[in-house]
Amino acid sequence: MSYTIEQIAQALGATAFGAADLEIDGVAEPADATARDLALAMKPEYAETLGQGAARAAMVWEGADWQALGLEAAIVAPRPRYVMSGLTTLFDPGQGWDTGIHPTAVVHETASLGADVSVGPLSVIGPGAQIGAGTVIGPQCFVGTEARIGKGGFLREGVRIAARVQIGDRFIAQPGCVVGGDGFSYVTPETSGVEAARATLGDQGDTQAQSWTRIHSLGGVEIGDDVELGSNCTIDRGTIRSTRIGNGTKIDNLVMIGHNVQIGTNSLLCGHVGIAGSARIGNNVVLAGQTGVSDNIFVGDNVIAGGATVILSNVPAGRVVLGYPAMKMDTTMEVFKGLRRLKRLFNDVAELKKTVSNSRQSD
Amino acid sequence: MSYTIEQIAQALGATAFGAADLEIDGVAEPADATARDLALAMKPEYAETLGQGAARAAMVWEGADWQALGLEAAIVAPRPRYVMSGLTTLFDPGQGWDTGIHPTAVVHETASLGADVSVGPLSVIGPGAQIGAGTVIGPQCFVGTEARIGKGGFLREGVRIAARVQIGDRFIAQPGCVVGGDGFSYVTPETSGVEAARATLGDQGDTQAQSWTRIHSLGGVEIGDDVELGSNCTIDRGTIRSTRIGNGTKIDNLVMIGHNVQIGTNSLLCGHVGIAGSARIGNNVVLAGQTGVSDNIFVGDNVIAGGATVILSNVPAGRVVLGYPAMKMDTTMEVFKGLRRLKRLFNDVAELKKTVSNSRQSD
Amino acid sequence: MSYTIEQIAQALGATAFGAADLEIDGVAEPADATARDLALAMKPEYAETLGQGAARAAMVWEGADWQALGLEAAIVAPRPRYVMSGLTTLFDPGQGWDTGIHPTAVVHETASLGADVSVGPLSVIGPGAQIGAGTVIGPQCFVGTEARIGKGGFLREGVRIAARVQIGDRFIAQPGCVVGGDGFSYVTPETSGVEAARATLGDQGDTQAQSWTRIHSLGGVEIGDDVELGSNCTIDRGTIRSTRIGNGTKIDNLVMIGHNVQIGTNSLLCGHVGIAGSARIGNNVVLAGQTGVSDNIFVGDNVIAGGATVILSNVPAGRVVLGYPAMKMDTTMEVFKGLRRLKRLFNDVAELKKTVSNSRQSD
Repeated sequence: MSYTIEQIAQALGATAFGAADLEIDGVAEPADATARDLALAMKPEYAETLGQGAARAAMVWEGADWQALGLEAAIVAPRPRYVMSGLTTLFDPGQGWDTGIHPTAVVHETASLGADVSVGPLSVIGPGAQIGAGTVIGPQCFVGTEARIGKGGFLREGVRIAARVQIGDRFIAQPGCVVGGDGFSYVTPETSGVEAARATLGDQGDTQAQSWTRIHSLGGVEIGDDVELGSNCTIDRGTIRSTRIGNGTKIDNLVMIGHNVQIGTNSLLCGHVGIAGSARIGNNVVLAGQTGVSDNIFVGDNVIAGGATVILSNVPAGRVVLGYPAMKMDTTMEVFKGLRRLKRLFNDVAELKKTVSNSRQSD
Repeated sequence: MSYTIEQIAQALGATAFGAADLEIDGVAEPADATARDLALAMKPEYAETLGQGAARAAMVWEGADWQALGLEAAIVAPRPRYVMSGLTTLFDPGQGWDTGIHPTAVVHETASLGADVSVGPLSVIGPGAQIGAGTVIGPQCFVGTEARIGKGGFLREGVRIAARVQIGDRFIAQPGCVVGGDGFSYVTPETSGVEAARATLGDQGDTQAQSWTRIHSLGGVEIGDDVELGSNCTIDRGTIRSTRIGNGTKIDNLVMIGHNVQIGTNSLLCGHVGIAGSARIGNNVVLAGQTGVSDNIFVGDNVIAGGATVILSNVPAGRVVLGYPAMKMDTTMEVFKGLRRLKRLFNDVAELKKTVSNSRQSD
Repeated sequence: MSYTIEQIAQALGATAFGAADLEIDGVAEPADATARDLALAMKPEYAETLGQGAARAAMVWEGADWQALGLEAAIVAPRPRYVMSGLTTLFDPGQGWDTGIHPTAVVHETASLGADVSVGPLSVIGPGAQIGAGTVIGPQCFVGTEARIGKGGFLREGVRIAARVQIGDRFIAQPGCVVGGDGFSYVTPETSGVEAARATLGDQGDTQAQSWTRIHSLGGVEIGDDVELGSNCTIDRGTIRSTRIGNGTKIDNLVMIGHNVQIGTNSLLCGHVGIAGSARIGNNVVLAGQTGVSDNIFVGDNVIAGGATVILSNVPAGRVVLGYPAMKMDTTMEVFKGLRRLKRLFNDVAELKKTVSNSRQSD
């Protein structure tokens, strides 16, 4: 892939300066850039290492004196982080897979494949499955009975979509992710210790140890358009109704979405996030890595949770939370400060007790 | 699948009322129910939405006036949550897979398959492996050398059972789970910083940085009867003795069971639970999502741990714990309350110090 | 596999005593040992159960009176834990896989395989991939376009190495691990609530809900020599530069390494550890299970983090940390003690306030 500075600027809706016909093969950090790379020098501190590389052209910040940086050409990005999206799309070399249906793929005769669908080597497409036009099913993937995947999707190696899962258009799935495992749902003949402890907040009473009987998952998984799933993440089926993930929501590696969970639109769930059964997550929610959400909890729209937050009760819309348990971020920051000084507080109180006791005795 | 109200009630050991010959094709939440669904209205608040759907029959609570709810038939469930088990078993449509040995499966000539065993497309059954009667090995599964799986098991797509793993009857494994990876066990030629820090609770002393030498896993994994494993969970082999999981224990998605771990019977380990090497977990233990157990720790029978609990030391039988570190649930609930008021406590103490100091000066 | 006591002692650089020609088929814990096992009795407390087994020979501690223990032969290990490495290497039975290229493997004609490379059943080796001499690619593995794996590697069942990933020699990968998924990197057209909340530590200001645009991952993954990856762990590609893992680093099951992360040499990352994007981890770092590291954070050489530590800010070299948030281990241990006494502290302060208030009133 090779583009001129002019072509790149046009594709990004940005402005080109200098040698607009300079040909570019890739993008690189300033210190690593070759003469055919566009260096990413979108902040002055990044530009400082331009001299260590061989870049003749760079993406620079608004108002940068690109000529003084020794460049022959420059592209100015008004919002540098956003421009990264267009730039990386332009230069993405892809996975290098062949198109078409690989002869080793096992495609059921009743499956329905749209125009220009590719199915990689050793993939399985089950009976009655429907794959929308232009979707790429990578190598060693599995698409179950009557599952439906929309148009323009891209499934990386080893993705597993179970029976009857419904997925919208432009779906992206990273390697090894699993959609449609059975929910983790069991019940005991009599009230269990967990049910008792939940009701009493900690007391199991005289409940007896019992073995667990399985509740089967009859519900499916329904995923909207423009959803992306990370490597080895898992999304369980619902018990009766479907587990649902709204349009534009992005889910990272090793995330776990339990049965019946409802997730809104345009939310981000980062690595190792766990959402327990029947929890509801709103729109435009961002949960940082390792955040956990208890079952049956509601997390409102636009909530942001910092790293490893443990959400044990409902969070109202718009709140920014952190900590175990989740509290407003500024409260948790105060708690963190307090914990560091906790020993001193104990000492102060001990000292006070002594002083007060002495002064009373001396009264 | 179609059953009459009478047939369903009989299968569940429940009581049918009204039009017992009404035919039912599925179960649904009240608002979503069609005229051929059994609506799940097992609590008065669920029944309120019956009018939004078209249900003619419902599962209702004991004493419900089902006719007043506009129903033609009803089934009364004494313990509604438990009845869900029988009901979902009845209506589970399954995965829709063909039976028999798929021609693309690679089954070693020395493997031994019981009666009515199915092996899905592109699965591998290794030398000397034994699969019990009626077990279904799904698509793209792997069963290693001399592994043994009992009768009536069901392995979903992409399950991996390593060499010499031993598994009992009625095993259920969700997609992508891995049994029998090597343990994470390394050693340095001289005492490592970790060993020193453990001995001193925090001081690495003058230990030197070293590289790690591998301890191979010679032990296997032994899994009892009626065990279920979640999607993409991982269970490591033991070093010398086997990692063991008792009868009736259920393990959720993305759970990690380290080498040498011993888990008792009828325990539940929810999503993202991590059990470090050589820990022992008792019978009827319930660990909520993201709970972690340190290596070599003992967790007694009937222990319940709330979400994201971090268990760094032994927990006696019957205790209900929560928090980081794990404490009795009511203690942790008090701590949570205290943390929210911690800033005020610091202010109170500062105020007290001032008051006491002033009053002493004024003495 | 069968060795004499003399052969075993020689292989370990240890000293044999007694019947040096006794033949040994395996290793076992004392109580489980047969007459042909070497019992592991490297501490006096382990030796106590020798009588429950049938061992004729054991590995014992320095200075042990092995004859008094009823043994015919003994090997003395100066550092018992270290000797486990050699001993388990000696007796590892391996996976029992056939060598050579399995006829069902899909190896691209442009892939380059070194001498004595094995490729298991139903594995895929992509165009231009290079596999070094002696490397074993297990069953159902995937090696992508132009990926490179060095010499003497061992990939267990279902490992997935994406396009252009570069891996050194003696690589070990446990089942289902994924190297080279795309980074989790998105951007909004205007400043997002997350960006605002980060800048203000908790305030989203008047940012508007927006949908997320994808930043593609152009960087690769570069892994050094002697690296081991655990079951179902995931390592993402970098955005521009590569994600890098240094020589001798070992990564456990279900660990998540985000895009652009740099990890040094000889570090250990235990189960469920999550490293967010662009974090840097030094050399000889040990992160215990479930530890999380925020994005763009730096963790210095020789840092040790205890179980479930949440690292939200830089950690200087050599520090031993624990807790949420990560603090020096002894500080956190003090905090844990303080939390258990927190309720009493609130009571003490309440009491003090009353006393002081009374005494002032009585003044």
